[in-house]
Amino acid sequence: MPLPHGKNFVAGCLRESGRTYGARSPLDGITLPGAFCMASPNDVDSAMEAATAAASTFALTTGETRATFLERIGEEIMGLGDSLIERAHAETALPLARLTGERGRTVTQLQLFAAMARDGSWVDARIDPAIPDRQPLPRPDLRRMLRPLGPVVVFGSSNFPLAFSVAGGDTASALCTGNPVVVKVHRSHPGTSELVAGAIQRAVESCHLPAGTFSMLHGEGSVIGTALVTHPATRAVGFTGSRAAGRALCDAAANRPDPIPVFAEMSSLNPVFLLPGALADRAGEIAKGFAASMTLGVGQFCTKPGLVFGIEGALLDSFMAGVAEAITAVAPASMLSGDILTAFEHGRDTLSGEAGTTVVARSAAAADAMKTEAAAILMRTDAETFLARPSLAEEVFGPFSLVVKCHSTEQLATLARGLDGQLTATIHGTSEDLSTAGDLLAILAAKAGRLIINGWPTGVEVCHAMQHGGPWPATSDARFTSVGSAALKRFIRPVCYQDVPQSLLPDALKDGNPLGIMRMVEGIVKRH
Amino acid sequence: MPLPHGKNFVAGCLRESGRTYGARSPLDGITLPGAFCMASPNDVDSAMEAATAAASTFALTTGETRATFLERIGEEIMGLGDSLIERAHAETALPLARLTGERGRTVTQLQLFAAMARDGSWVDARIDPAIPDRQPLPRPDLRRMLRPLGPVVVFGSSNFPLAFSVAGGDTASALCTGNPVVVKVHRSHPGTSELVAGAIQRAVESCHLPAGTFSMLHGEGSVIGTALVTHPATRAVGFTGSRAAGRALCDAAANRPDPIPVFAEMSSLNPVFLLPGALADRAGEIAKGFAASMTLGVGQFCTKPGLVFGIEGALLDSFMAGVAEAITAVAPASMLSGDILTAFEHGRDTLSGEAGTTVVARSAAAADAMKTEAAAILMRTDAETFLARPSLAEEVFGPFSLVVKCHSTEQLATLARGLDGQLTATIHGTSEDLSTAGDLLAILAAKAGRLIINGWPTGVEVCHAMQHGGPWPATSDARFTSVGSAALKRFIRPVCYQDVPQSLLPDALKDGNPLGIMRMVEGIVKRH
Repeated sequence: MPLPHGKNFVAGCLRESGRTYGARSPLDGITLPGAFCMASPNDVDSAMEAATAAASTFALTTGETRATFLERIGEEIMGLGDSLIERAHAETALPLARLTGERGRTVTQLQLFAAMARDGSWVDARIDPAIPDRQPLPRPDLRRMLRPLGPVVVFGSSNFPLAFSVAGGDTASALCTGNPVVVKVHRSHPGTSELVAGAIQRAVESCHLPAGTFSMLHGEGSVIGTALVTHPATRAVGFTGSRAAGRALCDAAANRPDPIPVFAEMSSLNPVFLLPGALADRAGEIAKGFAASMTLGVGQFCTKPGLVFGIEGALLDSFMAGVAEAITAVAPASMLSGDILTAFEHGRDTLSGEAGTTVVARSAAAADAMKTEAAAILMRTDAETFLARPSLAEEVFGPFSLVVKCHSTEQLATLARGLDGQLTATIHGTSEDLSTAGDLLAILAAKAGRLIINGWPTGVEVCHAMQHGGPWPATSDARFTSVGSAALKRFIRPVCYQDVPQSLLPDALKDGNPLGIMRMVEGIVKRH
Repeated sequence: MPLPHGKNFVAGCLRESGRTYGARSPLDGITLPGAFCMASPNDVDSAMEAATAAASTFALTTGETRATFLERIGEEIMGLGDSLIERAHAETALPLARLTGERGRTVTQLQLFAAMARDGSWVDARIDPAIPDRQPLPRPDLRRMLRPLGPVVVFGSSNFPLAFSVAGGDTASALCTGNPVVVKVHRSHPGTSELVAGAIQRAVESCHLPAGTFSMLHGEGSVIGTALVTHPATRAVGFTGSRAAGRALCDAAANRPDPIPVFAEMSSLNPVFLLPGALADRAGEIAKGFAASMTLGVGQFCTKPGLVFGIEGALLDSFMAGVAEAITAVAPASMLSGDILTAFEHGRDTLSGEAGTTVVARSAAAADAMKTEAAAILMRTDAETFLARPSLAEEVFGPFSLVVKCHSTEQLATLARGLDGQLTATIHGTSEDLSTAGDLLAILAAKAGRLIINGWPTGVEVCHAMQHGGPWPATSDARFTSVGSAALKRFIRPVCYQDVPQSLLPDALKDGNPLGIMRMVEGIVKRH
């Protein structure tokens, strides 16, 4: 692996600073090569000013230009070869195969947004032509399309060092729609971030885009993160991380003289409801699927199922026995960082310390603290305890889940009604179970962004129909998603052009539809 | 006019309280019939709890049911006949003809949203079918649609007592998409509000909808308004009013344990840029159009042009002379309320008190304070003064505008670049002017929600292509609009259904498209 230069990327320039930090590998606790420069307030100003300067030019680029740019980023990332995967592995302890898959997902995601940019229909063009002879007043010619908001600040997240970090979904959706991006690095994978930033930087240059289109800064969230969110030039924020950090950013944005939108994806328990028929049919199979989903990526998925509701009795016991068997066999594995392991242990210990909770099973092998390892753990409680102790409904990030034993299907619905907002909610049931579960489904549809029947929430497809966003505290604004093509809606706003001559109209709104995009003309949507 | 009962509408029941207030007519300062009951915290709880109870049932109504409901509201409003117009006139001093027109607009708006509900395509259904044999993992069946957020709190605004109040655009767009509504009455037109609430109430009953679908409460914004915005059951807020009140509501919503979205439409100067060729061609005509737009509805439109930029010289002088002539002849007229007149006078006096500002003209006739009258006034300043004194860029709500004399077209662009967010921005120019005004247009597209060429901003069409929302402080979230069919996007969120059996899917997502709506299937949008 080449030695990282450790500098900040400020609009095409590499900037050093005196204060540096290093990356420690969770695999062995040893500091990795590279000293990464903490950005200064001056770097923040420079990056945001360059982004502002770039914004109008970048907003006016064609969809084809932005598509080529996004594809080029993908090619440059692939061009980094094994060195990217190896550095990411050293920094995050995620397995090489997982990181290879995540790289593929990241590139596919860039290609999806490239396709959106190239097609151009995302601008949601709407044309209501003039009615000069309307009484009592003529109607003017009105044409509306979506335009970029301006510079977007993106926070790299720890758990997907490629797909939700420097060139992840937030960056891709902001760039797709013509917004410059300034990334705040997640300190747990600075070397990975530097490699990906270099890929983006080369793509900016080879596509002849303004230098301010992309910057990336190292620094503490509470200092550089806050400075970026409160900077006058920042127009929107994308964040994936903890509830406390997300709330702090939302508050900082809301307290600006001019509040700006923040999409923060924060905290979700992803409850699973096990209906009796399903357990009678296939308790063992459900247990295996659940254990795999709960421990996938050492439980470090935002969509990890952290809460299970079932009806007490032999069937639920059999499910728990199956999970126990699987979990006992799960080897402890390294978490993303020492901080994350500490938070996991704290959450787990808080919950195990609550009266009325019992450990069902944990990994048989001991976790090695030197390797930042966490052992998987399943606990159980009863509905009364769950209702009485709100801390049991707090997310424990890592390979942890809690089974809540209920008395009846009615109580399942009651507990569902009391849940906070969620990214996902899952039901396992037979056709017969489901035929009487309409109420539960309706309750969960009001709580979660995605409902899953007889599956697991940890797979999050990158497609048009995906919704990765739910009511608070799952995300800060349930009207948006951070995964899938609709993610670009976070960073755009409508502009209406009234009686603007053809020559001054954006191509998307011109007569004859020169871009060939889908448009709504007098309420009818088609390529006209 | 029948005597108002003065009670709060709480989910189908009329509730009294001890503390009441009256409406004073701005026409003569005399208190109008009716004692209106201040809602209690208990009324807030009851209304919100009933709205929550109604939400799931109302969310599941068909588009046809909600369309019929919205149309019925319109019919009931028309059925109120002259008594509605007369009461609104007495409470707001707006002319009978204007109010008749506004009633028509309100009913048309309800019909537009009825058509949206009936068509059903607003749910933006997206289907990505399963790919069972995909490698390395199968793709599940993913289907996504927009669903209501839940109870929406709507604040009646003073300046459109019908179109932006109890049954205005916020209410119509929330009901169209299946959200119960709780309206906070604007205290300047409580009798009008009661009449319209009665119309909605009758429509709720005749359509057999849950009682909690609609409530309406009287009370102070700082008490009842805040209680509604911070109530745990409230899922979103629609507001049109002052910048201070809007900011207070945004802050209250952002400080909740679970922040909720607020669409607040607050403050806009609606700048007008006069290019030299246009003034050379038709300074007199532009002056007349401008004076009419600036004084329309006694300057009480959110889109009133409050700021004019032109290049100093004979042409601009000739424009100002034309406006002066028109304004001198404009009779002082009653504003909506004593409070609004006081705020107008304060703003006007603050600006006239600034060194470097000069009164160009005002209404020749004296304003009658007993009739809450305001005289129209035009002022001027130069670019240096404007840049040096930020108070000159604050909205004065009422028949006031400020002309800023610039040195060059370059300076027009510089001043445009320094503006806050706006609802609208207008350019007057010949083809030749406009051929070199691309920069100015691009700057204004980044500042405003609507750009107008050679027209006036005060007409706001209710149609698909309208955008009534711009960057802060024009509105709290520029990604949304409060006028036009897209206004409904404020109150909905996507829900994704993964592997959900056909029988449990909403009709909008079922195979065969039983509702016949526009859907995106594997990225292709059509009625399939």
